[in-house]
Amino acid sequence: MNENEFFMSRAIKLAKNGWGKTNPNPLVGAVVVKDGKIIAEGFHRALGCPHAEVEAFNNAKEDVAGGTLYVNLEPCSHYGRTPPCAQKIIDVGIKKVVAAIKDPNPKVSGRGFQMLRDAGIEVDVGVLEEEAIRLNEIFINYIVRKKPFVILKTAMTLDGKIATASGDSKWVTGEKARNFVHVIRDRVAAIMVGINTVLKDNPYLTTRLPDKEGSDPVRIVVDSKGAIPLDSNVVNSDSKAGVILATTSRIDKEKEKMLIDKGVKIIKADGSDGRVDLKLLMDELYKLEIDSVLLEGGGTLNSSAISSGIVDKVMCFISPKIVGGENAPTSVEGIGALRMCEAIGVKNISVIKFGEDILFEGYIN
Amino acid sequence: MNENEFFMSRAIKLAKNGWGKTNPNPLVGAVVVKDGKIIAEGFHRALGCPHAEVEAFNNAKEDVAGGTLYVNLEPCSHYGRTPPCAQKIIDVGIKKVVAAIKDPNPKVSGRGFQMLRDAGIEVDVGVLEEEAIRLNEIFINYIVRKKPFVILKTAMTLDGKIATASGDSKWVTGEKARNFVHVIRDRVAAIMVGINTVLKDNPYLTTRLPDKEGSDPVRIVVDSKGAIPLDSNVVNSDSKAGVILATTSRIDKEKEKMLIDKGVKIIKADGSDGRVDLKLLMDELYKLEIDSVLLEGGGTLNSSAISSGIVDKVMCFISPKIVGGENAPTSVEGIGALRMCEAIGVKNISVIKFGEDILFEGYIN
Repeated sequence: MNENEFFMSRAIKLAKNGWGKTNPNPLVGAVVVKDGKIIAEGFHRALGCPHAEVEAFNNAKEDVAGGTLYVNLEPCSHYGRTPPCAQKIIDVGIKKVVAAIKDPNPKVSGRGFQMLRDAGIEVDVGVLEEEAIRLNEIFINYIVRKKPFVILKTAMTLDGKIATASGDSKWVTGEKARNFVHVIRDRVAAIMVGINTVLKDNPYLTTRLPDKEGSDPVRIVVDSKGAIPLDSNVVNSDSKAGVILATTSRIDKEKEKMLIDKGVKIIKADGSDGRVDLKLLMDELYKLEIDSVLLEGGGTLNSSAISSGIVDKVMCFISPKIVGGENAPTSVEGIGALRMCEAIGVKNISVIKFGEDILFEGYIN
Repeated sequence: MNENEFFMSRAIKLAKNGWGKTNPNPLVGAVVVKDGKIIAEGFHRALGCPHAEVEAFNNAKEDVAGGTLYVNLEPCSHYGRTPPCAQKIIDVGIKKVVAAIKDPNPKVSGRGFQMLRDAGIEVDVGVLEEEAIRLNEIFINYIVRKKPFVILKTAMTLDGKIATASGDSKWVTGEKARNFVHVIRDRVAAIMVGINTVLKDNPYLTTRLPDKEGSDPVRIVVDSKGAIPLDSNVVNSDSKAGVILATTSRIDKEKEKMLIDKGVKIIKADGSDGRVDLKLLMDELYKLEIDSVLLEGGGTLNSSAISSGIVDKVMCFISPKIVGGENAPTSVEGIGALRMCEAIGVKNISVIKFGEDILFEGYIN
């Protein structure tokens, strides 16, 4: 790791402090270095808060003029929720900017760098690029593809079951893996399950972290006919995060009214088969500035999600146990592919251990 | 890694040259070191060949007298297929013996070391013990538990399927993983499948290595009613490895005779349910000196094997693809556990990458 990578990795580490609080903004960290020493650090704390560069300048222990700024994303050049950072960088007298990636938005991409170069500032782009792309995969997807980044999370045994034949699923994985799912819930904007999960498990779908308070994701239930019980936990929990019922015009008008009275937001996304059109639903979620959805569905919803092409990332926990059962459910059901060569490929895979379990993750789109 | 571990790991590496050829003997490597230099090396080449220690002495570049012998298993003290190595070690004037593990056979365990100590040779035991146990897990199981070591090998997609709903299973994993299965076939004494696999895939069950000639395992078909076609590939292949039909008294007498005429060995292991009693079958295989069985069954046979308690090790290949399908088969079927907490745990797990696939392996017994 050279000097540039060292300071950029510090910026990326700082950026991660904003996880779950900046959506749909990116995660950004900034470090100012002078004479080989860090003299200022900052990160984007939450939506509406100052950008990372400004945070760093505000926190500076000495004058940043003449220093090198490390930041994992191109500084903005436009007036958005805050004034442009590129101008601020020029104003405080930064001599050189090292960035990991340019702005993913094609309309403004490169403009921040240009503004800096026009002011005589040296600009170096591409340091720890891959890591920076991974860090902001949700933001980049949101900007470029204009849809929420959908993470399909599953947990199965070593023989591919997500529950026993009788439906018992407590627990497939161990505590470390289950805790990590709550870390992910804390990071994403929304969580989505199907009505079958609500009827079977009656979950809260909130974030429960062992060591700190997490933020609950918006809770989305896919429920074509509006079968959700009014007294279900997801509808009645005291979480501040909203509840969205993704349904169709098949929902009973009375029921719809009662759900709205209980604070549930109704989104109707009629599919041609009378079920929720998940692609349409994603469009609606995008309009609500929901940049990411953790899909914790059963085999039926997961199958629909895969088939409709909305899934971007797969996080598959695998536990070292064998449960057996011809009739035990699996993570993706439906009709499935006819031939093995038609299976959906998962790319850029990585494997992480969580105690005895492993997380096998990768990307679809 | 200290000096002892360094030379022991060399002995273990040499031992592996015997893989697939020493069964039911152990894998043993031996190294003689004098003045910090290796002056002799050897390994047990095959059943009936000289033991590793003798091989090393025969290959010595200079006089081994006064040297230190590194060997991954306690030298034998009894006349078996060859004369006792402990005596030979004394005769050639070895000064010190460093061993990884003692002989697993409780009847002779420690006697070799005692013989050496009685002759004034220094003995050090336990160097790279864990690695040496793993290396000879088949041999140790065979000696201690008096049954073949059964390895359940499965290959599934990231959503737990071993084939599509229509039955297509070509291929779940990539070339590297599939090649490694042939490496395992080369190492084990026998391979076992169920009649369904024979009827569906008509496999040869031979060893096909990309870079060298492998040895075919004895091929065992579990077939309670004797439904195996006389013209099936496994019966008719020109492999020198034998074919065993594991069946019950339900087999047709005529069919049995025709199979015997074709060189098939018939083992009848009647279970109380009219199916093959796998435990009984293992006893019969033990009597035939079959020390290891690679189980490449479908979900039904795998389920019976797990339930009957014959499985010792699980090798589960997982490929990064999603195939879907409520009716797609999984690796362990049958009735399965009623509750998740009753699932069979797999211990001492390890994860190895084979290209894009992973191998998740561990132990049951």
